Amino acid sequence: MANEGQKVTSSKELGERLGISAAQIRKDLSHFGEFGKQGTGYQIAFLRTKLGKILRVDREWAVALVGMGDIGHAVVRYQGFAGRGFRIALIFDSDPTKVGQVAGDMTIMAVDRMAKEVKARGVQVAMLCVPGQHAQSVTNTLVDAGVRSILNYAPVNLSVPAAVRVQYIDPVIELQRMSYFLH
Amino acid sequence: MANEGQKVTSSKELGERLGISAAQIRKDLSHFGEFGKQGTGYQIAFLRTKLGKILRVDREWAVALVGMGDIGHAVVRYQGFAGRGFRIALIFDSDPTKVGQVAGDMTIMAVDRMAKEVKARGVQVAMLCVPGQHAQSVTNTLVDAGVRSILNYAPVNLSVPAAVRVQYIDPVIELQRMSYFLH
Repeated sequence: MANEGQKVTSSKELGERLGISAAQIRKDLSHFGEFGKQGTGYQIAFLRTKLGKILRVDREWAVALVGMGDIGHAVVRYQGFAGRGFRIALIFDSDPTKVGQVAGDMTIMAVDRMAKEVKARGVQVAMLCVPGQHAQSVTNTLVDAGVRSILNYAPVNLSVPAAVRVQYIDPVIELQRMSYFLH
Repeated sequence: MANEGQKVTSSKELGERLGISAAQIRKDLSHFGEFGKQGTGYQIAFLRTKLGKILRVDREWAVALVGMGDIGHAVVRYQGFAGRGFRIALIFDSDPTKVGQVAGDMTIMAVDRMAKEVKARGVQVAMLCVPGQHAQSVTNTLVDAGVRSILNYAPVNLSVPAAVRVQYIDPVIELQRMSYFLH
């Protein structure tokens, strides 16, 4: 809405755009304080700044990318990172022929250096693009080094401590979300 | 639960495993009929079969994959399709040096043949792994040929008729889901 030049919105309009009820919008926002006055709606710029702070996307998080296969290369080339809160800051691979090569504007580092580099730079976010059989051991190293949020492309469930969040990118789950509408 | 050898479950247990309330489980299921008797819980095998039918994941859908760059290659190699309701049946690319090559156990076809092949085979599902600037025109062709559900890896919003579903795979959105828990 901000990009469309709109200044003010309502829980009704937000709900319609998001496909949830206006009541749910008001309830969700109320968990975090006051965002607008009854009857006057929400100032979009204010709401956006506040939500950015609450969701911690008002800064740029350094991301460690592990595994430079097809997916790793695609992620490095992905055009969607700019201005959205994340920057790939470290890249690791276990293949000695890849180590030292440049991807994006970074040099691929040996996975042996991962724990030390992640810890030294205080990196808390990682993208896991390694084969399934290595995913858990790489995860263990990352978590020990201080990573608290992992985006996992490998088709395996990861076991992590309660303080660590994992999201899975699984094309089949996304396809399954839509199969109900096929015939 | 079935894989763990369990026979019966409850809305409470389902809710706990899914992170939603037991009441929501019962309400959601009630939209589709009777799944268990009050007090006796749900027969897991029965529930699984019924849900598979409702969600239309009790059959195998042929999928057309468009774009054999990094992502396309990774998707073809992805080990998570087997037994989960989808099978890549057609692969297309616009690059003449790729056409005729084999990926997985399929031959990459020229994108010019896409409309005809998709229509002839009655394919309703597509995965879009093309660069952003081509995503909308490829989508238009797919939709005209009968595709009704599209998984889009390109970082662009697609415009489709109301009867067509689109899911986006966007790593940044997945990362943003977790940033609230960072500090």
